[in-house]
Amino acid sequence: MESELHEVVSNKQVILRDLVESGSLKESHMLLMTGTAKLKVPEGSGNVVLLKNLFLSCNPSMGVRMRNMKVGNSALFFKPGLPISGYGVARVLDSGSPNFKKGDLVWGLTTWEEYSLIIAPGTLFKIEHDDIPLSYYAGILGMPGLTAYVGFFEICSPKKGETVFISAASGAVGQLVGQFAKLLGCYVVGTAGTKEKVNLLKSKFGFDEAFIYKDEPDLDAAIKRCFPEGIDIYLDNVGGRMLDAVLLNMKIRGRIAACGMISQYNLDQPEGVHNLMKIIQKRIRIEGFLTTDHFHLYPKFLELVLPQIREGNIHYLEDITNGLESGPGALVRLFSGRNIGKQVVAVAHE
Amino acid sequence: MESELHEVVSNKQVILRDLVESGSLKESHMLLMTGTAKLKVPEGSGNVVLLKNLFLSCNPSMGVRMRNMKVGNSALFFKPGLPISGYGVARVLDSGSPNFKKGDLVWGLTTWEEYSLIIAPGTLFKIEHDDIPLSYYAGILGMPGLTAYVGFFEICSPKKGETVFISAASGAVGQLVGQFAKLLGCYVVGTAGTKEKVNLLKSKFGFDEAFIYKDEPDLDAAIKRCFPEGIDIYLDNVGGRMLDAVLLNMKIRGRIAACGMISQYNLDQPEGVHNLMKIIQKRIRIEGFLTTDHFHLYPKFLELVLPQIREGNIHYLEDITNGLESGPGALVRLFSGRNIGKQVVAVAHE
Repeated sequence: MESELHEVVSNKQVILRDLVESGSLKESHMLLMTGTAKLKVPEGSGNVVLLKNLFLSCNPSMGVRMRNMKVGNSALFFKPGLPISGYGVARVLDSGSPNFKKGDLVWGLTTWEEYSLIIAPGTLFKIEHDDIPLSYYAGILGMPGLTAYVGFFEICSPKKGETVFISAASGAVGQLVGQFAKLLGCYVVGTAGTKEKVNLLKSKFGFDEAFIYKDEPDLDAAIKRCFPEGIDIYLDNVGGRMLDAVLLNMKIRGRIAACGMISQYNLDQPEGVHNLMKIIQKRIRIEGFLTTDHFHLYPKFLELVLPQIREGNIHYLEDITNGLESGPGALVRLFSGRNIGKQVVAVAHE
Repeated sequence: MESELHEVVSNKQVILRDLVESGSLKESHMLLMTGTAKLKVPEGSGNVVLLKNLFLSCNPSMGVRMRNMKVGNSALFFKPGLPISGYGVARVLDSGSPNFKKGDLVWGLTTWEEYSLIIAPGTLFKIEHDDIPLSYYAGILGMPGLTAYVGFFEICSPKKGETVFISAASGAVGQLVGQFAKLLGCYVVGTAGTKEKVNLLKSKFGFDEAFIYKDEPDLDAAIKRCFPEGIDIYLDNVGGRMLDAVLLNMKIRGRIAACGMISQYNLDQPEGVHNLMKIIQKRIRIEGFLTTDHFHLYPKFLELVLPQIREGNIHYLEDITNGLESGPGALVRLFSGRNIGKQVVAVAHE
């Protein structure tokens, strides 16, 4: 029986061929290669965990790490020739860590391959509640979910009755922030890139209003139409032109959580934001955050969100592609906005 | 004796001729006119105070109010044909308000003229300490002083040993923030537009380093030279290109207090800021504020700053022009950066 674990198996990997130097991310920037994996933690390797990856999350921040940006921190860039990494859901096959044992389900930072040796398992979280679809831990119950929680509740200190605007609202973070805001009694407007997504925001996620930003020649006017009295809270997932238009429409003491700037990740030169003077006149606070700084809030987040999911008060939409070989295409879909809901790659079904 | 107060006197005023539509503010945008004033609060006019203006403060925010900016709040614009207004120091000549009596010295919001009827004296503060030069209440002991206090202590929550960068550092707000930061034990660097100002920062105000931003082709490199480890706190008085370069050099969890964006007030179209993505990676907080929201802190501010001024631990440099007729020129000087220290107009000497 145990000898099975010593088996050497083939291990497909998504390798970064080259950093994106200019233009959009293409599938050809990545390469599917097949190596081998030994299904056992090497002897004496210490605190190491062997994972069988089940679901991988396509996260906008991966776009930053795949691009050779002059202003970026090059230590964060993915290394050409090596597999890319991100958050995912996995089964523990073997463990040298006292915190994990064979058979555990976990979510956390892993590598885009079938089997991963995790040297620093500090960013793995044990999955305690498996009555929920496991893929949810690559999204609403994983990093994007915690991001929505931190961005909305911790960074923006929302109050009942406030007005909330969300960009990239049908994405993993946006759909949850919108539902949190509705549960709190806020007025919520989202924007997305297609009619289908905008319809979903209203019909499935309960947004009060939504608009297709690509159809609006004047974003300022579109926002004013939805917020005649202005915006208290803006969850910014896109940056750029939308942020500029939002600055014109913030209320006094409005708060902007800078979650992401996906509109900028695929540009060679980031767009200029011109309306920052509004920050002073309107006493606006803009705050960036990384969810990794707030992992200690994960239990509190689960306590809030799990019952709401179970009772059907919070909905979640995923866009799952099948097989690791679908990964590069899924990432490209994300940056072109063609995904509907959280983009996930199913690597293996158990 | 009392009949003296009913006297009608001539009253010089600085009138806005036209809002600035494009280009820089010029003296010709203003007009000196002489009307008359009755040296008595009109019967039955209620809570009204008659002031004899002594000193007027040239404040960067006046530039915003003199310009027809598309993104501005037009309710804040000065009205062509009427005298402009700002903060100043004055003697109460007559009062219908229970809070002020004849002979009181006050600082607060007044009009650019010799005698002003103040309809809403809620923004006037009685001057209790006149062992300090009265002109100081148009600067270090008035709005700019309180702005420095709020921007540094309230918005940036500074800690001993942190690194602090200040733009327009020789101005009224900048010189005081720098001295507050040094008293707290911070490392302080300022930037200004001339060699003379930069020398003052180091010799008079005790800054650790200072540089002439106009002489630096690469602001990013200049900042990196002074802050190899990065910036914890940036007091932004200028916005634009400098803010963009600072964003590249902020430390993790750095704080930016948006006090002013003087580099933008004289532009027809504000410059774009391109490096806002840094806000996320570095978890930066940018917060705008208006000092008028923090008037309740004025006594606390005075308690801190008065002994330091009296003991010579805090220095203050003024650039005073004489006579209301020098006012338009003093304002233009401010926006061209030709003033050395706080730009004040002395209207009358008692």
